[in-house]
Amino acid sequence: MSEEDGLSAAVASAPSRRVSQGPVMPIGGAEETKPGGEVLERFVDLAGGENARIANIPTASDDPQRSGEGYAKLFRELGAKKADWLRVEQRADANAEEALALLREATGIYITGGDQARLVRLLVGTLVGECIRMRNADGVIVAGTSAGASILSALMMAGGTGIGGDSNGAAARKGMVDVVAGFGLLQDIIVDQHFSQRGRMGRLLSVFAGTPGLVGIGLDEDTAVLIDREGTLEALGSNMVTIVDGRDTISDYFDRQNGEVLTITGSSLHVLADGRLFDLDVRRAIGLETQ
Amino acid sequence: MSEEDGLSAAVASAPSRRVSQGPVMPIGGAEETKPGGEVLERFVDLAGGENARIANIPTASDDPQRSGEGYAKLFRELGAKKADWLRVEQRADANAEEALALLREATGIYITGGDQARLVRLLVGTLVGECIRMRNADGVIVAGTSAGASILSALMMAGGTGIGGDSNGAAARKGMVDVVAGFGLLQDIIVDQHFSQRGRMGRLLSVFAGTPGLVGIGLDEDTAVLIDREGTLEALGSNMVTIVDGRDTISDYFDRQNGEVLTITGSSLHVLADGRLFDLDVRRAIGLETQ
Repeated sequence: MSEEDGLSAAVASAPSRRVSQGPVMPIGGAEETKPGGEVLERFVDLAGGENARIANIPTASDDPQRSGEGYAKLFRELGAKKADWLRVEQRADANAEEALALLREATGIYITGGDQARLVRLLVGTLVGECIRMRNADGVIVAGTSAGASILSALMMAGGTGIGGDSNGAAARKGMVDVVAGFGLLQDIIVDQHFSQRGRMGRLLSVFAGTPGLVGIGLDEDTAVLIDREGTLEALGSNMVTIVDGRDTISDYFDRQNGEVLTITGSSLHVLADGRLFDLDVRRAIGLETQ
Repeated sequence: MSEEDGLSAAVASAPSRRVSQGPVMPIGGAEETKPGGEVLERFVDLAGGENARIANIPTASDDPQRSGEGYAKLFRELGAKKADWLRVEQRADANAEEALALLREATGIYITGGDQARLVRLLVGTLVGECIRMRNADGVIVAGTSAGASILSALMMAGGTGIGGDSNGAAARKGMVDVVAGFGLLQDIIVDQHFSQRGRMGRLLSVFAGTPGLVGIGLDEDTAVLIDREGTLEALGSNMVTIVDGRDTISDYFDRQNGEVLTITGSSLHVLADGRLFDLDVRRAIGLETQ
């Protein structure tokens, strides 16, 4: 292998994740919480099953205690050895030892849904955020549902700005959602959730259009993707995963004003049912051609 | 040019329309009816403007008289010389001279929204259907909104079957909508409407997945496409047009059972704002690359 090949192989394997990273699992919201629900059972399994120690981060919730205790109970019912939740009421709490200690001993980290803005304001750029990255780099699975899924990426949607009205069920208009920095566990990927249920292709594309080369992932309710360190994505759950690949995308994003409808062309579209695999490096579904 | 080139050029120009066809304009529903509404003004203009004689087909409506008279009044307000509506209460009416006479003298034909099933039951396969095709072949514009847009194609969705629940805001499941024959003014195209607003990517893909090579067109509300005899599509209106090109699509449609989520890969996705052009032969947006 020439040096150039080596370099291009390294580049090819880099974009969708960090080096030495554990699995990352964004979930589309409204996941089945009863035993038998595939998404949460898979999470607990990858966190260590009966040896799992799960740190639940309910910071997006308007009632973190209820959400935190509810999920902790749920994870114990699903077989985890231990489950606790992170107390963060102000930003200083997210730089404090108590929070970090909980994350340091966790074998699985789960970020619940609610308000993206609360998650960003209280956690992004704190030691909790950095600790989540380090634990994931050590191999610990990090999952998040709904708002908790958005924040896993480097680039996240943090709610509609009201330009062009509600961002659900709407055409792709420039500036229709706020875009801010997330935890950065996934690079070159933008995630949206409640995807088919709330008609969010337009808003996903509105962000996607601005950055050629992104992978847009639309997650339906009770549906998730599990992304491993090799860059393989697996679809999980009862609905579909939508993937839009922007490597060959051309758009008029930088010629449009805020609120104007965007034109976006040349993207590749894939939808995946439960169990299907997708290679994020070459950006192809795996195993379908041979059927 | 070799004979082979000639043949392949002819084949390349054939799939999306009939020979010598007038413009066809599927509309996504909820079009602006006030003066200044781009979609209807463009229709009246292409029907001849102040010389336009418009035949309005309100058969999908549960109150055809109200819908028929309402649109006729509207088209006159928008400047048409004459506008009347087609009386079809039973299938025999759609084979009768009165209905055919109205269509024969029309310079524009407009099919209103309502229940797809009523349109199919009363009109497909009748002399009215054949007359619409012939008038369009003679160059007369044929437009349809919502249910009236669906029926313009050879292949149309005629409502959900209830498999997997509501077909709005849902994952692509095999058999989630009924597919029947429409008027056939557009070939190799399947149209859905109220597209972003009702989250219908899943249901469009559920049909699209079964037939490699289709073009799926999702029309938002107050948004239309105007397809001319050269195979050029123009987006019109205040929201977006979604185009999914299936030439390179692979799906597991024939391996799935009714109600199961489909996997569909390798499709091309385009969304177009007002005024954008798309070439249905080569399946590319026109004019965007050079910006």
